Amino acid sequence: MRESQRAVAEGFLFTDQYQLTQAQLYFRHGLADRQVQFDHFFRNYPDYGEHQAGYAICAGLEWLIDWMESARVTAADIELLRSHTGRTGSRLFGDDFLSWLEAEGDWSGLSIDAVPEGRVVHPNAPITVVTGPLAKAQLLETSLLNHLNYQTLIATKAARVTTAGRGGAVFDFGLRRGPDTGANAGTRAAMIGGAASSSNAGITHLLGRQPAGTHAHSMVQLFMALGEGELGAFRAFAELYPDDCILLVDTINTLESGVPNAIKVFEELSADGHDPIGIRLDSGDLAYLAIQAAAMLDAAGFSQASIVLSSRLDELAIWQILTQIEEEAPRYGVDADHLIGRLVYGVGTRMITSQGASALDGVYKAVAVESNGGWTPMIKLSDSIEKVNTPGSKRVWRLYDERSIATADLVGLDGEDPVGAESIALHHPTRAESFRRLQRSEISEVAELLEPAVANGVRANDPVPLDELAERCRADLDRLDPGVKRLINPHVYHVSLTESLWQLKQKLVHETERT
Amino acid sequence: MRESQRAVAEGFLFTDQYQLTQAQLYFRHGLADRQVQFDHFFRNYPDYGEHQAGYAICAGLEWLIDWMESARVTAADIELLRSHTGRTGSRLFGDDFLSWLEAEGDWSGLSIDAVPEGRVVHPNAPITVVTGPLAKAQLLETSLLNHLNYQTLIATKAARVTTAGRGGAVFDFGLRRGPDTGANAGTRAAMIGGAASSSNAGITHLLGRQPAGTHAHSMVQLFMALGEGELGAFRAFAELYPDDCILLVDTINTLESGVPNAIKVFEELSADGHDPIGIRLDSGDLAYLAIQAAAMLDAAGFSQASIVLSSRLDELAIWQILTQIEEEAPRYGVDADHLIGRLVYGVGTRMITSQGASALDGVYKAVAVESNGGWTPMIKLSDSIEKVNTPGSKRVWRLYDERSIATADLVGLDGEDPVGAESIALHHPTRAESFRRLQRSEISEVAELLEPAVANGVRANDPVPLDELAERCRADLDRLDPGVKRLINPHVYHVSLTESLWQLKQKLVHETERT
Repeated sequence: MRESQRAVAEGFLFTDQYQLTQAQLYFRHGLADRQVQFDHFFRNYPDYGEHQAGYAICAGLEWLIDWMESARVTAADIELLRSHTGRTGSRLFGDDFLSWLEAEGDWSGLSIDAVPEGRVVHPNAPITVVTGPLAKAQLLETSLLNHLNYQTLIATKAARVTTAGRGGAVFDFGLRRGPDTGANAGTRAAMIGGAASSSNAGITHLLGRQPAGTHAHSMVQLFMALGEGELGAFRAFAELYPDDCILLVDTINTLESGVPNAIKVFEELSADGHDPIGIRLDSGDLAYLAIQAAAMLDAAGFSQASIVLSSRLDELAIWQILTQIEEEAPRYGVDADHLIGRLVYGVGTRMITSQGASALDGVYKAVAVESNGGWTPMIKLSDSIEKVNTPGSKRVWRLYDERSIATADLVGLDGEDPVGAESIALHHPTRAESFRRLQRSEISEVAELLEPAVANGVRANDPVPLDELAERCRADLDRLDPGVKRLINPHVYHVSLTESLWQLKQKLVHETERT
Repeated sequence: MRESQRAVAEGFLFTDQYQLTQAQLYFRHGLADRQVQFDHFFRNYPDYGEHQAGYAICAGLEWLIDWMESARVTAADIELLRSHTGRTGSRLFGDDFLSWLEAEGDWSGLSIDAVPEGRVVHPNAPITVVTGPLAKAQLLETSLLNHLNYQTLIATKAARVTTAGRGGAVFDFGLRRGPDTGANAGTRAAMIGGAASSSNAGITHLLGRQPAGTHAHSMVQLFMALGEGELGAFRAFAELYPDDCILLVDTINTLESGVPNAIKVFEELSADGHDPIGIRLDSGDLAYLAIQAAAMLDAAGFSQASIVLSSRLDELAIWQILTQIEEEAPRYGVDADHLIGRLVYGVGTRMITSQGASALDGVYKAVAVESNGGWTPMIKLSDSIEKVNTPGSKRVWRLYDERSIATADLVGLDGEDPVGAESIALHHPTRAESFRRLQRSEISEVAELLEPAVANGVRANDPVPLDELAERCRADLDRLDPGVKRLINPHVYHVSLTESLWQLKQKLVHETERT
């Protein structure tokens, strides 16, 4: 897109058309400033085919707040809306509404409570709660969902990939297959979810980390075409980057050419007092090649050299590779644990596009409206019981068991106090028969999840450094049951309603069905 | 991301780290200005699980060229690169290289030939050919792939969805689940591939179309909570948009509440001389509900009212819905063809994320380098024969048969002239035994696909309006065999090499294997 157009395409009009037609309707009906509350939540964990996630990592909030700080209605926006004609050729938006929008076109009046970025989150419990004037709360919907859905999706995938790697560093290599400039958000989310760094140079620097990378096949091809061969290419690279030397060994033949040439160059580096980092394998049977390469590196005295794996990796591919190494390495005299400990993962396409589950189904649902000086809870029925939203102004608490492991997320009404209660009733959100009661003594900690993020349109907190977000994610993952973290067929984490909220929901469903 | 950081994250450093480390290496070796040629192509059609595509629609070139026009190395970029330290704490990039980069950090010297946007393209034939100085051609790689891979992926999906809709308008509703700002590129690509419009307000206006939208469930919920009910909400909407009135009828109960209330309001609109557009169904069994709603609308005299379908649509979902309507509509006295003719499709998540195949595997491979005053072809071997690139400076021709239907894409060496030949040899790119010969008399037209797009860093053509790109796409789809367009298990379109190119490839493979 032309640079001059970016301000329009990514600014206030980065929204759905119906938010604008509805805003005009609310304005005309004197409802634009009516106080309302919307919940943002997702309904289902990402399902990558045979292996649905058992948790998600929320991300994107800081970029949403950044967007809110800069997205204002501009004269150019108003001109475009003025040009919009309906089917009969008359204008869709009136001058009265456009004047109002021009005057009111910022986010003042809106407040947001949210689960902080980097935390583990689960379906059907509010992650973000927006309170404020109706027209603005509605206009915010699309951008809020856009920012939070994608980053949460990628942070979740990255957490799974990192978990599969058993401590080996994961690098995001996804920019070239990522979604246009959205790839930058993906890189950020991947690092919140656990990636150590990224090949994506600009955004990685801006987020305070150093981008990662080696060299491409094309460099080797070029030296070959110029008559200097793979060895010449490796020598040139090692000469320039003697202490940061990772060599890509699969341009010609990994085991017959690439690894032997790399070892030759590593020996030269060592002789000069440098410590080579390692090699990268980018094609073929990565498990088999890693074992053979490890044996060759070990024999040459480079038993600490890293082996970077890349090519179509995701959490299942990594898991399979490690399993194969465990089975196969001993046959070749290679210690599997030692080999696994030196592996590093370059993960591209499948992480930045969350292959298999390319979107998160986050939604934004009206839950309460101000009337007669109080909040009137709102509900939306549906043929599908799972799609009936949980009404009212709510809070979310995470309950930790005696092991200090998270055991359930409890959604209740604003004003309830599960912390002080002797026992806590946990209702399944939709199934009446699914109910349990926890004694307070079984619970080691009750912690609220929603925190103030935006107050009257202005950020409530300074931006949090990436390392801290990544640490939050690690800490939350540490307090998840291993069964919930299982890659395939994970244990279902409980998200429950309090007794009061369950009763309110039943009452509203019955009242609405009767109207 | 903060607005002030956007220039860095989306500018010249929107690239992979290894492009920079390699550029420094080429600079130090006096190779930065060596002329090279890279081919961009993809290896496999998007495969959405059980239904791989049989063609692709190329898109994204204009946005790449826009990016090239604005992306320049800035002082801020240089500062970040200067701050990059290696493992031992010393700087990765030297002052000499950074000075060179600051002086040379634009795209002058690069020329691009490309298949014009909107055209049908196939695997393993160059879509974009970049010629110019090595360091810059390498630095461009990541952004080129990023821009072209994603838009081509989405334009392809949109063409499939549009084809499945049998002429019914398709609207992109994907912004809320799209990948951050990348969603704008997705919206553009969807409209190149056949979508009539989008809910995404800003970018749709900028591309010269009027965004599409109705109202949300929340509007109905709000009127319900305020005591005015669904009918009150519909009346308010119809009063404000009497000639552009589409009503969302599934907030309470589609057939018992939504459609009857919509009909009431349509009757009021008609009485006032307006022509209601239609209704939208967003949940439940869309085929069944469309039939029942059509019967009710017909009975009330609104047989021309559109029925907009949305909710988890993609090409297979649409195909299934239309099949079910054909089978089931007659039983309810509804004419299936008439009903299908009034359908409109709102397609969100599954189009903008290309669900099932969330990335295109486009690559960028060095194919030739200048040496001794001429081009030396370059090759990369691989354990997998499909990954051996086709070397040399090449052209691509599309051959049309007697029916004026595209029958094969022929990749040959620059300088070859299949137009004048009596017969044309077509070699499978990898299988020696797969070969055929076409007589010139069997071919009605031979058309070159690659056209100049960038000359010496500057665009070669004015931007093409979106309508013209969409028309190109339609025209190319019209000249594809129906078997190739089949949604499931399509006929394989032939991409072939000329005799000379096949011989060159064999020669290089054997020479490289011997080194």
